[in-house]
Amino acid sequence: MPRLIVLYKPPEDTDAFDAHYRDVHTPIVSRYPNLRDLRLSKLAGVGGRESEYYLMAEMAFDSAAELDEALSSEAGAASAKDLRNFAVAGATMFIAPDEADA
Amino acid sequence: MPRLIVLYKPPEDTDAFDAHYRDVHTPIVSRYPNLRDLRLSKLAGVGGRESEYYLMAEMAFDSAAELDEALSSEAGAASAKDLRNFAVAGATMFIAPDEADA
Repeated sequence: MPRLIVLYKPPEDTDAFDAHYRDVHTPIVSRYPNLRDLRLSKLAGVGGRESEYYLMAEMAFDSAAELDEALSSEAGAASAKDLRNFAVAGATMFIAPDEADA
Repeated sequence: MPRLIVLYKPPEDTDAFDAHYRDVHTPIVSRYPNLRDLRLSKLAGVGGRESEYYLMAEMAFDSAAELDEALSSEAGAASAKDLRNFAVAGATMFIAPDEADA
């Protein structure tokens, strides 16, 4: 399944970040049309180094077309807009197609 | 399943990167003890923006203990050393525990 993946940099106030993500952002993401799965992972570093990112959100869809549809939906726009409210430390996002071709 | 995740920045020469990843790096990673799954994704940007990363490698294990074991194995050391040979544009890595607690 193709995934939309967002990686969030460590926030200054993790409690406030977690609360906003849970109470405000997740309900918006849950409105994505055709969302099949939302997986959240609090990340840990490797070999004693801090992880560059704090949280990974993986949103899975049945097809690339449905992923695109979600991005251009009302919920997609609201989600992008909401990033400004809590992802102030920075975030990066990308699409992982459903393939293993490297 | 807990995952070790490595994200590679876009290489200058993608053909050389892909060839090294396939012919040299993947055989090393495949020697990780207890590796359950290696998933490779060539990443795409969102909304017309370039993805900050080119390739995502996800290595899944049955437990955090087995993941740690793989990292400290001979293959883990060889894999880390091999990064210098092809990941010159940069890479970041982290562990995604098997949970959804955000």
